[in-house]
Amino acid sequence: MRFRNKPWAAEYIAEHSYYCILGPENRKGKWHEVFGNEHPIHIEVGTGKGTFITEMAKANPHINYIGIELFESVVVKALERAVVANVPNVKLLNVNAEKLTEYFDKNEVDRVYLNFSDPWPKKRHAKRRLTYKTFLDLYKSVLVPKGEIHFKTDNRGLFEFSLMSFSEYGLLLNYVSLDLHNSDYEGNIMTEYEEKFSSKGFPIYRCEVQYKE
Amino acid sequence: MRFRNKPWAAEYIAEHSYYCILGPENRKGKWHEVFGNEHPIHIEVGTGKGTFITEMAKANPHINYIGIELFESVVVKALERAVVANVPNVKLLNVNAEKLTEYFDKNEVDRVYLNFSDPWPKKRHAKRRLTYKTFLDLYKSVLVPKGEIHFKTDNRGLFEFSLMSFSEYGLLLNYVSLDLHNSDYEGNIMTEYEEKFSSKGFPIYRCEVQYKE
Repeated sequence: MRFRNKPWAAEYIAEHSYYCILGPENRKGKWHEVFGNEHPIHIEVGTGKGTFITEMAKANPHINYIGIELFESVVVKALERAVVANVPNVKLLNVNAEKLTEYFDKNEVDRVYLNFSDPWPKKRHAKRRLTYKTFLDLYKSVLVPKGEIHFKTDNRGLFEFSLMSFSEYGLLLNYVSLDLHNSDYEGNIMTEYEEKFSSKGFPIYRCEVQYKE
Repeated sequence: MRFRNKPWAAEYIAEHSYYCILGPENRKGKWHEVFGNEHPIHIEVGTGKGTFITEMAKANPHINYIGIELFESVVVKALERAVVANVPNVKLLNVNAEKLTEYFDKNEVDRVYLNFSDPWPKKRHAKRRLTYKTFLDLYKSVLVPKGEIHFKTDNRGLFEFSLMSFSEYGLLLNYVSLDLHNSDYEGNIMTEYEEKFSSKGFPIYRCEVQYKE
């Protein structure tokens, strides 16, 4: 099993509902109220253990970050990190990204981050990839006009698929690096997975795409 | 100097005008007559020593190939190769690709190949890259509707630039490989340069893009 079972997780989440929002469907259209400011909202779909979102939140106090993670046993790790970091501009949702429009209103999100998403390498699982057209529809439904997706991965097949999917969808490719750690891109914040993987010398792929309207 | 001077080159070209077409501006709109058939015409811009185009011509006898090479001292190498191979579906032009529309009519070309084009790495030379928008305009001027560009390179910076240039131009990315020699792409024909480079273990990048109209 990929993640150990954590019987105390639900309790820990309930105790820290400042960071891990319970009943997020009730906050749809009200996320700026939740944060208590009008700063832009960036979401990370598949936030994992939360290093990226917590470090981003520290580095960019004028942006609100919401991390979405399906697995309770994983989101609790991100929650521990947020609690320790004590950053008010991070919130976590333990929900399924397929239901994104239940939690966010149209134009409520300014940017989507996808980091090291599950590659679902088998062709018959292509629809599960977070860059498949149905997900691009979902992101569009909650993003501002000309909203952006920032995506990085070590998985070549997923990146190739995603570049084609973005192109077919009509997204504009504003930035691409085929070896992020040997590029002139500044301010990269590594995920746990990224540190481990790139230390072995494999390239990290990264791009920024934008909806045309 | 990159290429040795070849005082005999002009003479050799004149003697083999079946393959290396003299006065190509007079053939504009008449390339199917030159080949004596109605097969599709694929051009390679920057054909170098001609391995790619000659091998493609052998493998695909029902396609007409035209290689365009600026340097006389290089085109003569491609010409020697075509003469030895004795393939009637190859022609070579010793001209500047910037004047493509002087040699080809609208809708006369079915596909453009770009292989290991000069990367022109300095930003101030970006306009010289064969995937810069002015070149994409040129290719569009001679291609059939929904014509394709097939591009490969070992140069990461050029490939990144090109993916963005294609996207900005509104081309559709139909295929991309970020490590051609470790992909499931079949039928790759290597250029001289590609053989040398890939044997060192560096990735070859390849894509196919298509004009939307």
